Amino acid sequence: MSKWQELADSIEPASQEARIAAQGWQAQLTKPEGSLGVLESLGEQLAGIAGYCPPPVPSFPAVCIFAGDHGVHAQGVTPWPQEVTAAMIANFLDDGAVVNTFADQVGAEVVVVDVGVATELPAHDALVSRRVRSGTADFTQGPAMGPEEVSAAIQVGADVAAQQFNEGVDCLVTGDMGIGNTTASAAMISVFTLTQPELVTGRGTGVDDEGLKRKIRAIQTGIAVNHPDPRDAISVLSAVGGLEHAALAGFILQGAACGVPVILDGVISAAAALAAATLAPNVVDYLVAGHCGVEPGIKVALEHLGLRGLVDLDLRLGEGSGGVLAVPYVQAAARVLRDVFTLDKAGI
Amino acid sequence: MSKWQELADSIEPASQEARIAAQGWQAQLTKPEGSLGVLESLGEQLAGIAGYCPPPVPSFPAVCIFAGDHGVHAQGVTPWPQEVTAAMIANFLDDGAVVNTFADQVGAEVVVVDVGVATELPAHDALVSRRVRSGTADFTQGPAMGPEEVSAAIQVGADVAAQQFNEGVDCLVTGDMGIGNTTASAAMISVFTLTQPELVTGRGTGVDDEGLKRKIRAIQTGIAVNHPDPRDAISVLSAVGGLEHAALAGFILQGAACGVPVILDGVISAAAALAAATLAPNVVDYLVAGHCGVEPGIKVALEHLGLRGLVDLDLRLGEGSGGVLAVPYVQAAARVLRDVFTLDKAGI
Repeated sequence: MSKWQELADSIEPASQEARIAAQGWQAQLTKPEGSLGVLESLGEQLAGIAGYCPPPVPSFPAVCIFAGDHGVHAQGVTPWPQEVTAAMIANFLDDGAVVNTFADQVGAEVVVVDVGVATELPAHDALVSRRVRSGTADFTQGPAMGPEEVSAAIQVGADVAAQQFNEGVDCLVTGDMGIGNTTASAAMISVFTLTQPELVTGRGTGVDDEGLKRKIRAIQTGIAVNHPDPRDAISVLSAVGGLEHAALAGFILQGAACGVPVILDGVISAAAALAAATLAPNVVDYLVAGHCGVEPGIKVALEHLGLRGLVDLDLRLGEGSGGVLAVPYVQAAARVLRDVFTLDKAGI
Repeated sequence: MSKWQELADSIEPASQEARIAAQGWQAQLTKPEGSLGVLESLGEQLAGIAGYCPPPVPSFPAVCIFAGDHGVHAQGVTPWPQEVTAAMIANFLDDGAVVNTFADQVGAEVVVVDVGVATELPAHDALVSRRVRSGTADFTQGPAMGPEEVSAAIQVGADVAAQQFNEGVDCLVTGDMGIGNTTASAAMISVFTLTQPELVTGRGTGVDDEGLKRKIRAIQTGIAVNHPDPRDAISVLSAVGGLEHAALAGFILQGAACGVPVILDGVISAAAALAAATLAPNVVDYLVAGHCGVEPGIKVALEHLGLRGLVDLDLRLGEGSGGVLAVPYVQAAARVLRDVFTLDKAGI
C-alpha cells in the first residue's frame, strides 16, 4: 500500500456532534433563523472540522500554487504558449500577479511549487522545486504520465500541506498554474462524473470556437485512447490528468488529514478534489468551494461533490485567486459563532 | 429649493475618462482579458469615482445603520414585535450583532443612528440621536409621514455621510434596522419600478404564508390610498416609505456628492437607492450593490438601477451585513489596478 493510500485512509469524517452543536447555537443568536444563508452551513461545517463549537477563526491562510505543464498543449487547446507557465511562476515569485494581490488583501501567504513545469526555471529562494517530470505527455497519444509519477506528485502536494500546517497555517487554499490545464481538468471531470466532455469543457482563459472544438476532441480522444477507470483516481490522473492535479489531490488529502478547512479555487481544483474524494470520500467534509467560476466543469464537479461555490463573480483566472477571495467568508462564518450575542444575552 | 435638492443637483457623473483609462490598464495586466469578471468592471467604476486610475484602495469603510419603525407593523406584516428595533440597536451598540462581527472582520466602523424609532431608547454615547419622529404612521390609513419629515430624514442621512467623510471614511456602507421595513421597501420598489407588489414582496426575516398575503395586501392598500408619484421621490417616501429609507437616500446622495463609493446592503438600501436615483440620476455611478439577497424586490430594484449584486450567499438579515461583506471585493478590485504587474513589466 502506497503512502498516499495510508494518508487517504487516515482522514476521519468531520464531527457530526460539533456540527449539530453549531446548528443549535446558530439558532440562539440575535438574528432570524437561516438569515445568514450559506454562511450558516459554512459555520456548522467549520465546527465539524474543528470538532468543537464555536470553531476557531482561520487566521493564517496560505494559498499553495502547484504548477505543471501539459503535453496536450500540442493539440492547440489554448491560445497561450507553454512558456507562459514559467513566466507566471516568475510573476508569482515577484509578487506581481492577481493572486498575490488578493492574498495581500486577505493576509494569506503565497507558496509556489514546481511539480511539473516543462521548461527551465531560474532558481529562486521562494520557489519550492519538487518537479516530478517536465510536463505530462500528450494524452491523445497515450497516458499523460505513469502511475508512479502520479504517486510522486500526490506526495509533493501532501508534503507541502503538511509543511504549511506545521508552520501554523490553519486554512489551506488550492492554487494552480499550467497552460492547458483546463483541458486536463475537463477530461478528469468528464471521467469522474460520467458526463460527456462537451458538457464540462469551457473556454478556459479564452479559446475561440475552433479551439473549443479542438479541446473537446482532444478530451474525447484522450479518454478513448486511455480508457481510465472512474473508480480509480490514480488511473484517471495517469490517463488524462496533470502533475498539478495530482499534487493538489495530495494537498487536499493532507489538509483534511490535518483537520483544517481546504478552500478550493476553480475548475482545476475541483477536478483534483474529485480525485481526492475518490481516494477518500471523507475528504469532502473538509472542502469549501471557494467560487463558482464560469467554466462549465466547475458546476458539474461541485454538484458531484455536494458543494456550493461561495464567490460568484464570473472569475476564470485560476492561480488560486477565487479561493483566496473566499477566505473572508470562511473567517466571517466562524466569527459569527464566536462573537454574535445570543437572544438571551441581548435580552431579546 | 430645499437643501437636499441642491445636494442632489451637485452630484457630478463619475469620470468617463478615468473609467476608460482603467479599462485600458486592465487589458495590460498579467491576466487574460476579462478573467476577473465582475471585479474588472468594479475596478473601472472605482476609477471613475476617483477620477483617476489606478483608484485608491478604500481603507476606512464605515457602515451606518439607520433605524426607524413602521406604522404598517399594525397590519401584521412581520412576526417580530416592534420592540425588537430598540433591542437590536442596543445590540449594535454593545458590539453583539452580526453586522458588528462582519465589520470587525473587514475593519469597518459601525455607526448607529436613530432617525425614527418608535420606542424610548436608553442614552448611549455612541448612539447618534437624530429622531425625526417616533416611527411612521400606518400607510394603509394615509401617508407614512409628511414631506417635511421626509426632508428632515434625508438631511439626517446626508449629515451622517458628510461627518463620516470628514473623519476620513473613504467607503460608505448602508445599514438599516426597523421591524417591518421590508414591507415599506417592497412598496417603494413596486412604485418606483412600476412592478406589481406581489412580484417584489418577500418573506423578510421570516413571515409565513398568511403573513405574506397580509403584507402584499397592506402594500396594495398603501399605494391605492396614497397614490404616490413614481417620478417624485419625496412623494413616494412620504406615502409608503420609512424614516430610515429617507435617511439612507440622503446618505447615498451625500456619499456620491463626496465622491466615495457607496456600498448598498439589501432590499431596504435598494429601495432607498431608487429614491436617491430619482432625485439624482448621477448617483448610480457611485453605487456598488453589496449583495443579491433573497428578497425578490432586490433583484427588481437592482435591475432597475443597472447594478449587479456582488455577494451571493442567500442572506436576508439586513443591518448592513451583506454590504459589509462586499468591502473586501471593492478593495480587491481597486488593488488589482494598483498592484498587478503589466505583461510588459513581467516580460510576458
